[in-house]
Amino acid sequence: MDTRVRPQVVARSAPGFDLRAWSGTHLERVEQALSSWVVMDAPAGLGDAMRYAVLDGGKRLRPLLVLAACEAVNGHTGAALRAACAAELIHAYSLVHDDLPCMDNDVLRRGKPTVHVRFGEAQALLAGDALQALAFELLTPDDGTVSAAVQAALCRLLARSAGYQGMAGGQAIDLASVGLALSEAQLREMHRLKTGALLQGSVLMGAACGVVPVAATAALGEYGAAIGLAFQVVDDILDVTADSATLGKTAGKDAAQDKPTYVSLLGLERSRAYAQALLAQALAALDASGLDTNGQARTHALRALADMVVNRDK
Amino acid sequence: MDTRVRPQVVARSAPGFDLRAWSGTHLERVEQALSSWVVMDAPAGLGDAMRYAVLDGGKRLRPLLVLAACEAVNGHTGAALRAACAAELIHAYSLVHDDLPCMDNDVLRRGKPTVHVRFGEAQALLAGDALQALAFELLTPDDGTVSAAVQAALCRLLARSAGYQGMAGGQAIDLASVGLALSEAQLREMHRLKTGALLQGSVLMGAACGVVPVAATAALGEYGAAIGLAFQVVDDILDVTADSATLGKTAGKDAAQDKPTYVSLLGLERSRAYAQALLAQALAALDASGLDTNGQARTHALRALADMVVNRDK
Repeated sequence: MDTRVRPQVVARSAPGFDLRAWSGTHLERVEQALSSWVVMDAPAGLGDAMRYAVLDGGKRLRPLLVLAACEAVNGHTGAALRAACAAELIHAYSLVHDDLPCMDNDVLRRGKPTVHVRFGEAQALLAGDALQALAFELLTPDDGTVSAAVQAALCRLLARSAGYQGMAGGQAIDLASVGLALSEAQLREMHRLKTGALLQGSVLMGAACGVVPVAATAALGEYGAAIGLAFQVVDDILDVTADSATLGKTAGKDAAQDKPTYVSLLGLERSRAYAQALLAQALAALDASGLDTNGQARTHALRALADMVVNRDK
Repeated sequence: MDTRVRPQVVARSAPGFDLRAWSGTHLERVEQALSSWVVMDAPAGLGDAMRYAVLDGGKRLRPLLVLAACEAVNGHTGAALRAACAAELIHAYSLVHDDLPCMDNDVLRRGKPTVHVRFGEAQALLAGDALQALAFELLTPDDGTVSAAVQAALCRLLARSAGYQGMAGGQAIDLASVGLALSEAQLREMHRLKTGALLQGSVLMGAACGVVPVAATAALGEYGAAIGLAFQVVDDILDVTADSATLGKTAGKDAAQDKPTYVSLLGLERSRAYAQALLAQALAALDASGLDTNGQARTHALRALADMVVNRDK
């Protein structure tokens, strides 16, 4: 059973669109590509640790967002597949490092022992480092399949999503916030960087695989920002309401680590309402994007993914 | 006193060329660029840790190699300055991670407490991660100053130098080799990846800033491979013959950690002879490159840097 994607309210935002079938097709391409690109021939066990970190797990939300955005702009599918995998590698490396003892010290991830538990801390550190480099390697093939302009744009977007203005910066705020009472604005800024930047970056990388009017790119950026934040709000909700077995990772750890969350700040009901408001915002951005003209519903996958992000149960 | 570069036998390989003056000019540009690009506005102390890791220290050998190679091919100096800084960021991040307790557990680097001693392990981990991303960010400006083709080529070279086929792969072999009796071939392979790949990559990035015949690029690659290996042989020699105060890092740590080195494998005298042979090889590659035609000694800085690598005392 494919448990990675379980759309529940697809009908509401993308009538007639079958996200399960769409995801199935696209996930198969992503899994095959990841398996062939995350190499076994890396030396001294490094390849094993890299593959363990990446393969066989995860919702693959970032790859799906890249591919859905590429579809929305009728972009270059080969470039998008590379960008999809690159975004997933950045995500995977961040989890490996985040799980290390000096960070969250977590032993369970996607229902399996974390990378450092399985391979040791040093190898986990290196595997994360190598995955980040591999992401940029995937974006820069020298086989003539992807134009230099698209390669450069993808590297630009990914580097900014991953670095100090994005994911790594958000992690630093997270680190500094344990035990502190954050305002909602501070919490939002932390998540905008920590999780939102790479989700939004995934959408924008998909858009960069095609030729798009500036206004449409801006709309896709708004969509990405809204679902990026919604993703974290829902994560905070699930950390409280779901159990470890369903999540495939340790539930309740935010509260245990005294981390500020949307639930601790807004309460459960207001957090749920906020997630729904962000979904509406994401869909409104797509409405305004101008991409669904001439009777073509190009944004249907993006719409259904937004639904899935907000209404998932794991 | 500028103690970073002390050429000693410049006259031999690049007659009449003043490496000290050349380096002084170029290092000033590199330091200014690093200081402006390694940002203070990264959140929650991350910027402080990043700057601490990068600024105010190091021989800056990789940046100098990029700039010297760019000069040899009469390339785009703006692109080369970005590539020079990007290579240094990758080097700096690798030192931060390499010094962590789960790796070499070192407390002294460039005469100062290591990043995790000063900022904590978690922040050091994040600073390293963010520096790697920043390297690719520097290579992909969107201000029109560097062509997309050069941006893509630089990202391609840097990612391969840093990743599983390069530095990270070499680190993994290093990790797996402690206490083992390596053959010379195995030791060479480890260093070719661990240190050599980024040094060679720096030379090739400099070359990618210009338009070069394939044969010249190949010759520069040979030069880079030779000095990359020579660098490590000399490092092994200095680990035995120099003291911590001169090195600015803990001397004798290879032996203390029971790591295989050229000195432990070949002895001191044969290691010294090997380093000189590699220098000769590097210079021969430049002779064959065809870059010094029409009475123009374009490779003089590369020659003098090769001398410095082999004949340095720290």
